[in-house]
Amino acid sequence: MTITIIGIGLIGGSLAITLKENGFAKKIIGVDINSENIDKAYRRRLIDDDMNLDEAIQASDIIILSTPMDVMMDLLPKILDQVKDQIVMDTGSTKVSLLKKIKTHPKRKNYVATHPMAGTEYSGPEAAIPNLFDKKCTVICDRKDSSKKALKKIESLYQSIPMSIIYLDAKSHDIHTAYVSHISHISSFALALTVLEKEKDENRIFELASGGFDSSVRLAKSSPDMWIPIFKQNRDNVLDVLDEHINQLARFRSVLIKQDYQKFHKLIQESNEIKRIIK
Amino acid sequence: MTITIIGIGLIGGSLAITLKENGFAKKIIGVDINSENIDKAYRRRLIDDDMNLDEAIQASDIIILSTPMDVMMDLLPKILDQVKDQIVMDTGSTKVSLLKKIKTHPKRKNYVATHPMAGTEYSGPEAAIPNLFDKKCTVICDRKDSSKKALKKIESLYQSIPMSIIYLDAKSHDIHTAYVSHISHISSFALALTVLEKEKDENRIFELASGGFDSSVRLAKSSPDMWIPIFKQNRDNVLDVLDEHINQLARFRSVLIKQDYQKFHKLIQESNEIKRIIK
Repeated sequence: MTITIIGIGLIGGSLAITLKENGFAKKIIGVDINSENIDKAYRRRLIDDDMNLDEAIQASDIIILSTPMDVMMDLLPKILDQVKDQIVMDTGSTKVSLLKKIKTHPKRKNYVATHPMAGTEYSGPEAAIPNLFDKKCTVICDRKDSSKKALKKIESLYQSIPMSIIYLDAKSHDIHTAYVSHISHISSFALALTVLEKEKDENRIFELASGGFDSSVRLAKSSPDMWIPIFKQNRDNVLDVLDEHINQLARFRSVLIKQDYQKFHKLIQESNEIKRIIK
Repeated sequence: MTITIIGIGLIGGSLAITLKENGFAKKIIGVDINSENIDKAYRRRLIDDDMNLDEAIQASDIIILSTPMDVMMDLLPKILDQVKDQIVMDTGSTKVSLLKKIKTHPKRKNYVATHPMAGTEYSGPEAAIPNLFDKKCTVICDRKDSSKKALKKIESLYQSIPMSIIYLDAKSHDIHTAYVSHISHISSFALALTVLEKEKDENRIFELASGGFDSSVRLAKSSPDMWIPIFKQNRDNVLDVLDEHINQLARFRSVLIKQDYQKFHKLIQESNEIKRIIK
């Protein structure tokens, strides 16, 4: 099978490594607007060939769209305009706006909307790693809008990794990802700014920062070029959960101000419930 | 050398493993008000013997106080009342209140105030692990108030691990730890409550939560019994940095409301500066 990956970064590059290694793909074609990324992808042996977009679409069985969300919004309709039997999937972090854009496209059935739930705070071809997706979970959205053939092919792609698959409608997907992914990033960006603002003596942070601090702010290294389009497209859900987060912090502020340590204890105990959910 | 560790939990237990393994301690005596902890500490071979507090003080060269902060506030003066030549150190997360408590104690010079900057979100003897402190940093506070002999002994203890040592006055210590440790915990507790509140369908969190979410909320598993006394004693600094954190989140809220994605991009870029500080 020949697979084209458009956007050879953390996600696209890691998929390239995995699908080549496990034999699902015979050939990986890379398409990237940034020629430096193509060079890096060759050097890291992520791709076997590179082409311009139109050539790559014609030469492929599956086309994986793995660019930032704003670029996807432009590219997805253009790609569908050119496909015959090829199957198209994306790996984007938001779905409602993207699916609206191609809702009535005559080739809608050739496309499967997916979101593999994995990543790191790094980006670009140099960030691609094997096993990024291993045993993680992927979401397939609005599956009834894809043809049976396209759905089956993309399911077999994810099963080859292997990833487990859950099925959600686009709206639920965007709400859940605001809760379990997008808010963690805003919290981490804000925490980094807090500490950078307060802690002028940077050597002290460097010396004192222990594991807890590292893990809380590591997401603050994430790329704005990737994240701004996500926040833009999922704005209402993100605002909703951000308001709730600020409310929760205000509760901690209030018990500290009142020195109500019994209530504070109870708040921490409630938050400890997260143990049931994450290992 | 015989070392007594009072409070055989994550920190005390991990010190016990390390100091026995590297030969700095010949014998470790455990003191813990919770007899279950003593049983667990024997079973995990963290301690060679257990005694009541008074016996243990008399039998030791060094006494390490490693209980929650509120217990330390009670115990430290009582321990100093009983020492002759023994050297006492603590591992507590706040310093100003504790040092005030024993400022004029006739045995003040036998005591060295320390804070090894390492930990995990787990607690109790079962959480003790080898290498927890390896190549991390410890703080020694107000060293001029300790005798040269006591200081040298405790420095050699930390160097044996090995940990690097930085010297701070108690006030600076409490401010810096509010920035690089205490606020990360409050942020994580609040994030866990946010998601638990919003995400009623817990299976969905479990399935969708990827690495980013895990690392942001892992501190929310931390014990309230350990953390409440820390927040209590470092209240003013924690409030100060919590206010700043809420302000920073409000900036993200404001750019989202105004849909000012250029400014949002700039905020993320600024927060990316944290890369210079953490690896």
